[in-house]
Amino acid sequence: MEFKAKDIASLLRGVVEGDENVTVNNVSKIEEGKPHTLAFLANPKYEHYIYTTRASIVLVNADFQPSAPLSCTLIRVPSAYEAIAVLLKMYENMRPQPSGIEQPSFIHETAEIGEGHYIGAFAYIGKGVKLGKNVRIYPHAYIGDGVKVGDNTTIYAGVKVYYGCEIGNFCTIHAGTVIGADGFGFAPSTEGYNKVAQIGNVVIEDNVEIGANSCIDRATMGSTRILKGVKLDNLIQIAHNVVVGENTVMAAQCGVAGTAKIGANCMFGGQVGIAGHISIGDGVHLAAQSGVMGDIEAGKTFMGAPAFEVAQYKKAYVVFRKLPELYGQLRDLKKEIQTLK
Amino acid sequence: MEFKAKDIASLLRGVVEGDENVTVNNVSKIEEGKPHTLAFLANPKYEHYIYTTRASIVLVNADFQPSAPLSCTLIRVPSAYEAIAVLLKMYENMRPQPSGIEQPSFIHETAEIGEGHYIGAFAYIGKGVKLGKNVRIYPHAYIGDGVKVGDNTTIYAGVKVYYGCEIGNFCTIHAGTVIGADGFGFAPSTEGYNKVAQIGNVVIEDNVEIGANSCIDRATMGSTRILKGVKLDNLIQIAHNVVVGENTVMAAQCGVAGTAKIGANCMFGGQVGIAGHISIGDGVHLAAQSGVMGDIEAGKTFMGAPAFEVAQYKKAYVVFRKLPELYGQLRDLKKEIQTLK
Amino acid sequence: MEFKAKDIASLLRGVVEGDENVTVNNVSKIEEGKPHTLAFLANPKYEHYIYTTRASIVLVNADFQPSAPLSCTLIRVPSAYEAIAVLLKMYENMRPQPSGIEQPSFIHETAEIGEGHYIGAFAYIGKGVKLGKNVRIYPHAYIGDGVKVGDNTTIYAGVKVYYGCEIGNFCTIHAGTVIGADGFGFAPSTEGYNKVAQIGNVVIEDNVEIGANSCIDRATMGSTRILKGVKLDNLIQIAHNVVVGENTVMAAQCGVAGTAKIGANCMFGGQVGIAGHISIGDGVHLAAQSGVMGDIEAGKTFMGAPAFEVAQYKKAYVVFRKLPELYGQLRDLKKEIQTLK
Repeated sequence: MEFKAKDIASLLRGVVEGDENVTVNNVSKIEEGKPHTLAFLANPKYEHYIYTTRASIVLVNADFQPSAPLSCTLIRVPSAYEAIAVLLKMYENMRPQPSGIEQPSFIHETAEIGEGHYIGAFAYIGKGVKLGKNVRIYPHAYIGDGVKVGDNTTIYAGVKVYYGCEIGNFCTIHAGTVIGADGFGFAPSTEGYNKVAQIGNVVIEDNVEIGANSCIDRATMGSTRILKGVKLDNLIQIAHNVVVGENTVMAAQCGVAGTAKIGANCMFGGQVGIAGHISIGDGVHLAAQSGVMGDIEAGKTFMGAPAFEVAQYKKAYVVFRKLPELYGQLRDLKKEIQTLK
Repeated sequence: MEFKAKDIASLLRGVVEGDENVTVNNVSKIEEGKPHTLAFLANPKYEHYIYTTRASIVLVNADFQPSAPLSCTLIRVPSAYEAIAVLLKMYENMRPQPSGIEQPSFIHETAEIGEGHYIGAFAYIGKGVKLGKNVRIYPHAYIGDGVKVGDNTTIYAGVKVYYGCEIGNFCTIHAGTVIGADGFGFAPSTEGYNKVAQIGNVVIEDNVEIGANSCIDRATMGSTRILKGVKLDNLIQIAHNVVVGENTVMAAQCGVAGTAKIGANCMFGGQVGIAGHISIGDGVHLAAQSGVMGDIEAGKTFMGAPAFEVAQYKKAYVVFRKLPELYGQLRDLKKEIQTLK
Repeated sequence: MEFKAKDIASLLRGVVEGDENVTVNNVSKIEEGKPHTLAFLANPKYEHYIYTTRASIVLVNADFQPSAPLSCTLIRVPSAYEAIAVLLKMYENMRPQPSGIEQPSFIHETAEIGEGHYIGAFAYIGKGVKLGKNVRIYPHAYIGDGVKVGDNTTIYAGVKVYYGCEIGNFCTIHAGTVIGADGFGFAPSTEGYNKVAQIGNVVIEDNVEIGANSCIDRATMGSTRILKGVKLDNLIQIAHNVVVGENTVMAAQCGVAGTAKIGANCMFGGQVGIAGHISIGDGVHLAAQSGVMGDIEAGKTFMGAPAFEVAQYKKAYVVFRKLPELYGQLRDLKKEIQTLK
């Protein structure tokens, strides 16, 4: 299928600059741009590619000011990143989606399955499970007894959801993620440890996306809660009784220890660690690999392990790199003072 | 079901303080305590909740001294944490457990399966596998050829156990964990790397619990060993030929490199990394995110990356945070000395 | 089966020192060496074991100079590590390999499967999949629609490969690894985040080995690429649009953020983190737990978080450990200067 620049601009409420009749049939990255494809420029770091790209159309932010001549047609939009998201979504939606029930699968006779479903081969749907409308359960997914899944949710291959957990509407859970395994609770005893039974569950609200091979443990009592709009990347650990606030985003390999409370609209870089029983305010940003051992007030940006305010951390780290030199200077000063005395 | 305070106290060998006939029908967290539920207070950090909780009964440590009036009934026990563990276990045990063999499943004709078993749908039991009594193998678990599993062990959905590995009695392996994948061994060659075949196995002793999506690699030769009573959380990496000593506990996302030897009764925080070929003594504690590059003597507590003794680390880190200030002071001193000269 | 020292030496092009007719029937680790087994010594750290090992034969590097009498027979080879790899490979190859198609499995009628295959029970082979010759797909593996797998590749139990990804020849993918899940891309919107559809794929070239429970995300557009000969350990995260260069090796739990470009022949220790959109040159070595926030030139060795050159880092860290002392010295100097003034 061919699309004209003017039609794409119209769809995105953008403005064409250049040949409005040039056509594209695919998307590409600006650095690999091929003729008859559409690319986008959102990160200024990639600006230099726009002057040499062979892509026919480039989506740019409305305020983009080229510093050299361009051979491509521009479409100016309020946000190039949001606009490309719209186009990729359209492209994705053209891909046929699976539907129906593949065999063999295991569906308990008491399970309720809404309309518009896909149940892949080897999927396991336990006793009393309730699946909403337009739910897609890919092969090898395990939906334990009594689990509830809302409308329009997709659960990819090999996801494991333990008994009694709840997943909202419009959620996406990627392959291999485990929801509702026992929280890590052991009481010391004379002979080692006694397991603390974990009788709570996991509640995942609407519009949550969780990456691949992540783990969200069930609560000891009550619920581990992932609130509306949260986005978790791959290989993330969320321990028992944690609450992750609305629209908080965590990059891959973050770990949150038990009963920690994470605010709304936080952003964590990769491999961040959060200690148990602490509270992170709304809108907190954490640099990758930060280790947080105490509460953080709303709106702060922290870095380091143990983490503190990013601006201070960076200053301290600049001096850290000079420590051998600084050590030498101190030694010299001591000598000079001896001489003076 | 309703339980009276006096009956619970009798069961737990505790002492009632307040209305011994008050009843509960569920458990709750002290901060969310509802009427007719039982909560517990073990961590002093949560003490303030006891003065306002609506829970009808609260389990406390025998030496708890309230600093304000209480409206709940107390049950004093030697250890509130151990006592709640007993109650949660009873609650958990009331939940019906699956049994029998679900279909379709794959059980090799040479496999031996003890009494009291559960084999979930889509479970794979390979050639020559031996499962003890009361073993539960959940759906999508893969038990490779020749694997041995002891009595009363539970293997959750989607666990993969490669050929020839051994798992003891009373073990619990959570969903998605992989036991016995090849150790990461490659010998440099002129054209890249040649794989070193990993012909050993993994041996997991009794009373071990392993969380979700963890990995225990098979040994190059001999065995990777997880000794009695070890508790490993989610997303942990144990490399080939590692030995983890009895009753050692590791929080999520720890990684132990090849041939490291970890002592007994160690406690590692989350995201700790242990270098290969080193030895960690018994009873070593490591703060979260520690990176250990050399041997550690028994009984030490280390922190940092590279890790050293925690008290020293914390002192060094206090100064690290002041480094910009310290740097300024040094500069000032240099000036003053110039002036003096 | 029994093997004589002289026959093993002949096979490995080595030289016997001691009884050339002594026989072995198994391999063992030098520290656990038993009679009638063959051990090897490659890491000088283990040299002391050779003087007491009960192994009948020990493979050593050609230049090994014993510092005490030996009771074992030596076989000197150019590289003991490469030689043991050859022997272990032979041992491994004697183990019978599965073949044929186990039931139940799901193979779409349009899938093409080469000769010499093994398709385990509960494996899912999607629409239009193409598997080369001698491909082994273990139980519970999910091979999504349109996936291509080259010759002689092994995909272990429970691996999930999303639609449209490509895997080369002579690759090994260990259990639980997820290839081609959506990259982590979201555009901020007024109500949270809008998902950016990820319409690219993952391309894995020849001779790649990937450990267990790792994640390689599909590209937003184009491909995430793992080039020839790369070796990735367990629990590794490779984000969308990353390129990992030829023969690069990463230890467990490394994470590489989106669009980073990693050169050839790099070696990363465990738990390393690489920021998005940066470029790491060829032959870069990174110490375990390094955090890399900017480009690194070819051939460098870095350490720390944020990482810089390892020699400098180690010097700075030596002073870091002395910071409390250094702080005291500075305070003393200030006093002395006050006195002098």
